[in-house]
Amino acid sequence: VKLLTLARDLQRRRGRERQRRFVAEGVRTVEALLASPLAVTGLVTTAGARADARAAALLHEAAARGLPVAEVTDAEFASASDTDTPQGVLAIAAIPERSLAAPSGGGRYLLLDALQDPGNVGTVIRTAAAFGVTATLALPGTVDLWNAKVVRSAMGTLFTHRALAVGWEEASAFLAAHDVALWAADREGDPLAVAATAAPARLALAVGNEGAGLSPPVVAAAARRVTIPMAPAVESLNVAVASGILLYALRPA
Amino acid sequence: VKLLTLARDLQRRRGRERQRRFVAEGVRTVEALLASPLAVTGLVTTAGARADARAAALLHEAAARGLPVAEVTDAEFASASDTDTPQGVLAIAAIPERSLAAPSGGGRYLLLDALQDPGNVGTVIRTAAAFGVTATLALPGTVDLWNAKVVRSAMGTLFTHRALAVGWEEASAFLAAHDVALWAADREGDPLAVAATAAPARLALAVGNEGAGLSPPVVAAAARRVTIPMAPAVESLNVAVASGILLYALRPA
Repeated sequence: VKLLTLARDLQRRRGRERQRRFVAEGVRTVEALLASPLAVTGLVTTAGARADARAAALLHEAAARGLPVAEVTDAEFASASDTDTPQGVLAIAAIPERSLAAPSGGGRYLLLDALQDPGNVGTVIRTAAAFGVTATLALPGTVDLWNAKVVRSAMGTLFTHRALAVGWEEASAFLAAHDVALWAADREGDPLAVAATAAPARLALAVGNEGAGLSPPVVAAAARRVTIPMAPAVESLNVAVASGILLYALRPA
Repeated sequence: VKLLTLARDLQRRRGRERQRRFVAEGVRTVEALLASPLAVTGLVTTAGARADARAAALLHEAAARGLPVAEVTDAEFASASDTDTPQGVLAIAAIPERSLAAPSGGGRYLLLDALQDPGNVGTVIRTAAAFGVTATLALPGTVDLWNAKVVRSAMGTLFTHRALAVGWEEASAFLAAHDVALWAADREGDPLAVAATAAPARLALAVGNEGAGLSPPVVAAAARRVTIPMAPAVESLNVAVASGILLYALRPA
């Protein structure tokens, strides 16, 4: 029951910050967590969950590794769950201490400028991991990276990809110190295909809030603004889609 | 109250198929609907909605156009709403009769092969519209295009972009008749950058189900399989992200 109480407490950002822990929910996400280097505190499950072979295997592995597993009722599980149709498996783990990693040779960084939708942020992190981005920097105003929906949407990539929250001063000082060029994705800028011919070896891309776009300091600091050309009738692309196109088109040579 | 009953009935696919109507919810989506050529049946709103200036302007415009507007209680509105935090504005409109459009000169088509997540499908449609795709074809097994969450995620683009459900026989006959090459996005295939150098003027791209991938007839019919190279530890990209990258990289010259 202690694990259940902890899982409930971790539903709120304040609880996660106090406990330095987060919740990963669902069979696939917990599988990815157990395969990652993160320190797992324990699992919470229901009697019904073991009917699923994959969930049963996961719980077997957790037990074999000596991890505490609390079995609770469906109603108790639902009280800690973030999903409408819980699979009956969640794990609690320590939020990793991450720092900015200097580029070795070339490198790509992604800056999230006040992205608020947790599903979008998780999908952006999954995309950044797929393209071998060195680190994803969540600037102030961005949803907490360890929010349950971010964790779920990242499909396990948050456990290994270096994603971390940093202030703008720290982020811009880091980029300057390591000679990383900052480009900003904006509605008005150089067409991506033109910019792509001149992508430097060390490049950081800033993508903005779904509604408001980029914040003024980020735009002011950007060496270049880049636009994905699109039909004029369409207001914008989804930020995860835009991030994927930018990371693909500006991938290191 | 009749409009409310109708809106409730349209929450289910069977209701939409019987009535040939759908629900668009939220201020921005209803704005886009009113700006589109679709035939609007009427609006449902709450007394509180008018406190928002944009919603008030929208309701004013609807009234000026002689559209029926039903004002209901918050609880009644919630019973027809698809969102957790309703804005108190929805509209009912006729599902447009759409047919496959032959390419004039070059063209791009997108085939959705049993995509089941409505948020993903809406985002894919928004992406296809942004890249000027001629038509998006929802193959069998794909979620209903007029599902409220698809409508919302498409951010208004579903009202103007030619997205329609078609059977595989019809789709493949159309592609053959118009000399449109079919390429399939697959985990194993030619690297996208290689394929992009040989993209034909008339091209259809098939993207598959989030879990199961492409269906066997689609793979069998594809002239080419194309892969977006990614880090081996990441299982896949989100289907909307992958669609965006493919449509960008394979855009007409």
